[in-house]
Amino acid sequence: MDDKPLYIPILLGTARQGRQSEHVAAFVLSEMKKRPEIQTELIDVRTLKMRLDDAGEEMKDASYAEKMTRADGLVIVTPEYNHGYPGLLKHALDMCLEEYIHKTVAICGVSAGPFGGSRVIEQMVQVVRELGLAVTFTDLNFSRVRDAFDEQGSLKDEKYVGRLAKFLNELVWMSRVLRYGREKIPPL
Amino acid sequence: MDDKPLYIPILLGTARQGRQSEHVAAFVLSEMKKRPEIQTELIDVRTLKMRLDDAGEEMKDASYAEKMTRADGLVIVTPEYNHGYPGLLKHALDMCLEEYIHKTVAICGVSAGPFGGSRVIEQMVQVVRELGLAVTFTDLNFSRVRDAFDEQGSLKDEKYVGRLAKFLNELVWMSRVLRYGREKIPPL
Amino acid sequence: MDDKPLYIPILLGTARQGRQSEHVAAFVLSEMKKRPEIQTELIDVRTLKMRLDDAGEEMKDASYAEKMTRADGLVIVTPEYNHGYPGLLKHALDMCLEEYIHKTVAICGVSAGPFGGSRVIEQMVQVVRELGLAVTFTDLNFSRVRDAFDEQGSLKDEKYVGRLAKFLNELVWMSRVLRYGREKIPPL
Amino acid sequence: MDDKPLYIPILLGTARQGRQSEHVAAFVLSEMKKRPEIQTELIDVRTLKMRLDDAGEEMKDASYAEKMTRADGLVIVTPEYNHGYPGLLKHALDMCLEEYIHKTVAICGVSAGPFGGSRVIEQMVQVVRELGLAVTFTDLNFSRVRDAFDEQGSLKDEKYVGRLAKFLNELVWMSRVLRYGREKIPPL
Repeated sequence: MDDKPLYIPILLGTARQGRQSEHVAAFVLSEMKKRPEIQTELIDVRTLKMRLDDAGEEMKDASYAEKMTRADGLVIVTPEYNHGYPGLLKHALDMCLEEYIHKTVAICGVSAGPFGGSRVIEQMVQVVRELGLAVTFTDLNFSRVRDAFDEQGSLKDEKYVGRLAKFLNELVWMSRVLRYGREKIPPL
Repeated sequence: MDDKPLYIPILLGTARQGRQSEHVAAFVLSEMKKRPEIQTELIDVRTLKMRLDDAGEEMKDASYAEKMTRADGLVIVTPEYNHGYPGLLKHALDMCLEEYIHKTVAICGVSAGPFGGSRVIEQMVQVVRELGLAVTFTDLNFSRVRDAFDEQGSLKDEKYVGRLAKFLNELVWMSRVLRYGREKIPPL
Repeated sequence: MDDKPLYIPILLGTARQGRQSEHVAAFVLSEMKKRPEIQTELIDVRTLKMRLDDAGEEMKDASYAEKMTRADGLVIVTPEYNHGYPGLLKHALDMCLEEYIHKTVAICGVSAGPFGGSRVIEQMVQVVRELGLAVTFTDLNFSRVRDAFDEQGSLKDEKYVGRLAKFLNELVWMSRVLRYGREKIPPL
Repeated sequence: MDDKPLYIPILLGTARQGRQSEHVAAFVLSEMKKRPEIQTELIDVRTLKMRLDDAGEEMKDASYAEKMTRADGLVIVTPEYNHGYPGLLKHALDMCLEEYIHKTVAICGVSAGPFGGSRVIEQMVQVVRELGLAVTFTDLNFSRVRDAFDEQGSLKDEKYVGRLAKFLNELVWMSRVLRYGREKIPPL
């Protein structure tokens, strides 16, 4: 097995003012940094170069595309807005295509309410598959996110540490498997 | 039955440069204008006041909200991007909430390929329901949109005229029914 | 407004031995029977005449079809199995088509876990729309259903009484509106 | 790379009398048998031991479960019924759980109409992911299936041969990659 670290950035999928998902992304980032097998960084949709009068690969943000090219996997942290994904998250994802193929993605859903972003994850699964990403079957669901973190963004509910560990274990396994596939198993 | 015209604007859901859905929206607009029972206009996501560093009701475009408040129904014209909706369409829809309740929506899907936006419609159905809109069960699907219109945007494939008529018939019926409900049937 | 009672049967969507959704359906039935504006009964997928070597309208259960023809609305009580609907619920629904058109449906999701059947509801929404049913935007979600009822099926968690009342209020309103439409507003 | 053949059965997902998907499954079976890297057989939901008064792992068909345990991958051939999957296909899939984990699945959608089962595939993707299957991003879509085969079930439209080859190429690649993962990459 290849011991080279996996490059797995985190995409924070909302630009909303007052977004609670920022706390989630910061927590995920901090836990991922503790793992020697992962190299990570935060990609914030708010800082991507996007336009309000275009869409798709034509408006590709070069820095984002470079990271996706280099990535072995991706964590998407996304709130659920009206049972779907934030528009700007989709606007960002649609900028690339070939860059994603045969990489792994794991999705972290965030809700103000009780259902942990379960619905946005289901819609995301359909989108990321079309992008060529292989999505893990272990989600991470943050329900009532305002109860999970304090005002400063510190985790209050420690059970998420263990859940995140399982979520990352599967992501690392799948990313290793697909990296082996990309490097060693010839396409037919 | 109330004979007052129904106000049913058309939301063009993509801002992409070179968008083919613009031809579809123009065709739908032109046919809707021929109907005395409908009052309509085009709302282009490209011209809405939106931001790249926010989302939701906090960044509400007042003119868009005023139209949704006044609307009896809505036509969404949307291409399918990676099996989902364009980010900016969702970004726009998420700006309102109360404005949509108990209004009707009908969805027109657009694809470069053969499947007529069938997948984006399925995702849209889940979103608009949460917004309080009642979606018709008669979609309009434009497959291989570049074959349906010429370079100038004139319709080449006349079978869409009859399909659009059926699509609008159901939309008008449902909009009349729900307007009656909003005005005459007290909520419990 | 027409004061004739609305006929709104409840479809219990699982035949699983030990099904917890039976308690949910019994609770919903008992509350609906208290309402003078509703006439109801339980339809149990376990008792429908269905086959394991056919599907669709060809194997239509006449009694089920008669009830759907007569119905003004429908409540579906469904557990979530592997993020989707129980096979036998879909097997039952697919037996009819014309019978459903322009009736109302409201969906009650049931989960052993914390997400209240939120995912099965999303898939159901897509199916019932194609059947011609108009789905309300107010769901009822039973999370951790074993905590909501005792062994005998008595409700332990009283907050569901108020939630069900709101769910039924919207269902009754929408059923009244669509009944008016079917009877008084001519199709175009 | 391991040269042992991959065991990839085909699950025919409808029991409907007069089902056209049977022709599709027979065609897929015949092409898969030509490939030395694949060992396959047809599993017909019509012949599985299932019940109309139960669901889930409790009614597990031992022969089906044994095949899923042994499988490296799976092809699902499914028609689209009312924008969703046939009930009996879901009834079958829900009989297993652990058996599927970290195997590959590829989905072949079948429609009487023009959209190639694109909607049933989207719903299936959400279900199979929860089952632990990794779904390929290359679907096979049979639109207007009655035009693709003659009365005897012989393929009339030869373009499906090439499409199926690409579909199988990706399935074989992904199945090899995941088999390597299951056998050689330790879970964390």
